[in-house]
Amino acid sequence: MKTSAAVTVERSDALRSAVSEHPDHYRVLTGERPTGPLHLGHYFGTIRERVRLHRLGVETMFVIADYQVITDRDSMGSIRQNVHGAVLDYLAAGIDPATATIFTHSAVPALNQLLLPFLSLVTEAELHRNPTVKAENAAAGGALSGLLLTYPVHQAADILFCKANLVPVGKDQVPHLEQTRVIARRFNARYGEVFPHPQPLLTATPEVPGLDGRKMSKSYGNAIALSMTADQTADAIRRTRTDSERVITFDPTTRPGVSALLTTAALCSDRHEHEIADSLGDAGAGALKTLTTTAVNEFLAHHRRRRAELALDLDHVREVLREGNDRANAIADRTLDEVRSAMGTIY
Amino acid sequence: MKTSAAVTVERSDALRSAVSEHPDHYRVLTGERPTGPLHLGHYFGTIRERVRLHRLGVETMFVIADYQVITDRDSMGSIRQNVHGAVLDYLAAGIDPATATIFTHSAVPALNQLLLPFLSLVTEAELHRNPTVKAENAAAGGALSGLLLTYPVHQAADILFCKANLVPVGKDQVPHLEQTRVIARRFNARYGEVFPHPQPLLTATPEVPGLDGRKMSKSYGNAIALSMTADQTADAIRRTRTDSERVITFDPTTRPGVSALLTTAALCSDRHEHEIADSLGDAGAGALKTLTTTAVNEFLAHHRRRRAELALDLDHVREVLREGNDRANAIADRTLDEVRSAMGTIY
Repeated sequence: MKTSAAVTVERSDALRSAVSEHPDHYRVLTGERPTGPLHLGHYFGTIRERVRLHRLGVETMFVIADYQVITDRDSMGSIRQNVHGAVLDYLAAGIDPATATIFTHSAVPALNQLLLPFLSLVTEAELHRNPTVKAENAAAGGALSGLLLTYPVHQAADILFCKANLVPVGKDQVPHLEQTRVIARRFNARYGEVFPHPQPLLTATPEVPGLDGRKMSKSYGNAIALSMTADQTADAIRRTRTDSERVITFDPTTRPGVSALLTTAALCSDRHEHEIADSLGDAGAGALKTLTTTAVNEFLAHHRRRRAELALDLDHVREVLREGNDRANAIADRTLDEVRSAMGTIY
Repeated sequence: MKTSAAVTVERSDALRSAVSEHPDHYRVLTGERPTGPLHLGHYFGTIRERVRLHRLGVETMFVIADYQVITDRDSMGSIRQNVHGAVLDYLAAGIDPATATIFTHSAVPALNQLLLPFLSLVTEAELHRNPTVKAENAAAGGALSGLLLTYPVHQAADILFCKANLVPVGKDQVPHLEQTRVIARRFNARYGEVFPHPQPLLTATPEVPGLDGRKMSKSYGNAIALSMTADQTADAIRRTRTDSERVITFDPTTRPGVSALLTTAALCSDRHEHEIADSLGDAGAGALKTLTTTAVNEFLAHHRRRRAELALDLDHVREVLREGNDRANAIADRTLDEVRSAMGTIY
């Protein structure tokens, strides 16, 4: 018997072929919590796949989920800078705002209104079963914010407002999407067919280690931001903790620092960790750092050049957001009208 | 030492004088869940006081909270009929839609969007302390809907979107308003002064018994709807269960049916229950029913005549709602813009 994970992978492979064949049959919703600059983990985890889908001709909606910033913190942080930064990274990565829609959560009231009917379709117990809610609840012990608790429902609103039928996810996120599918199914059963049942498109997301060997994360301060300069990158890599063993070997358990650099270099140069280690031999951590710095800076050179050019014209970034928000609002208004018709709340 | 209830009453008395003196300093938010026709309980509990404030010149916003219908049920029911009915009852009771704003919850996306920042300001534990949530949770045992769980936050959005600073409440509802005040305080402390601290205006709400002696409630089927005809009222009163004791006495514990009729007649004719009982002597339940029917039908005659006239022109009702929704949207959009400025989510 196949495991459910195996079934998901198999379905996702079939779906991937179907998408390549008929990109115009699909609309993708994808997005970010703008809590900090995007980094290499985002690049390999999501951006690369989004760009692939976008280039195939799949209509793609990017939500910059600004309200999600305050699910678990008390301040919006450098929100404007982070939002502008995300737009710059999307554009630099090759997203064309003429055919893709980039918008912010807080600019689309009709999307947010969907939260109310959707909240009526789930129980508190179901909210608690969401993996993110569960993990955060264990940490917060009842002090969970109402916004974090209802997070699976916001996600459903984000996906369903634009009737996205395809959501690229890492394997950890498959259960998240299931709550959205349940909400779509319940809404349609109760009020009549309005929403699609979005399918997860499982994306191979290599685990990108941070510079300390832990997961790369804005909050761990171990990330290589896409927006860093070559010098800042060199600095950050130079400061990582490695060890005094001169022979370079790949062993994430006993040599997390050395191994994180090997993986980073491998991803950026499309090589294998062991191959790089062998090529370095007993050249020591300094040589590994130099090699990794070069690999990262070469890999990101085009992106960074393009990003720096775009950053000179923030009016253009604002215009991209304005147009994206207008488009998202038009779609959300249309969907909300359908929801009102279905629920009978047009008087 | 004074009890906190005594303090609330005292404050409310002072507030009542202040409102009479400067009605233009206040904006009231009040409203209804449109789950069925409005009845005598609503009339004495809320409508009478709203009409008084409106006539004083206090700007009044009426939210018909249509999404609240599905906090604890699976269907919107006869939603259009109930919404139109509420508007008819407001107008018949003397609310002038030129100066009061009557709107539906589902028509004002920017109001609903406030739910998101507000949800970030409360914890799940706080939501559970709300008296309504608490009672329903005890009944539902974890199957509480997300919409009911977050109900205190919707209420805050309803009140704060229009910066209402006065909310007429029965004494049971004072704790409900406290959550709204907490949300306003936390928002202002975190992002800067945007919201007022709405004050409860304690309204003397006589307990209006249903025809069976329990609380008058749409869901108990024991209500005298304002929209009933005189004949329907007579029928409903005739069918009530009384007892065979011919001497009429007021004793809600041992004679709930007889006492409910006495209270109903007393409220509608501005007399006392004992006085009516004495006047009936040993005339029996039939005479009491006749007297009560007359009292109710006379009391509601003007309201019903006016309501029946208005009901001939549902286009006018729709126009009232359209104008109210437009006004509410303009207010909500303005407030949401202030919220966006305060939170820094304007890019």
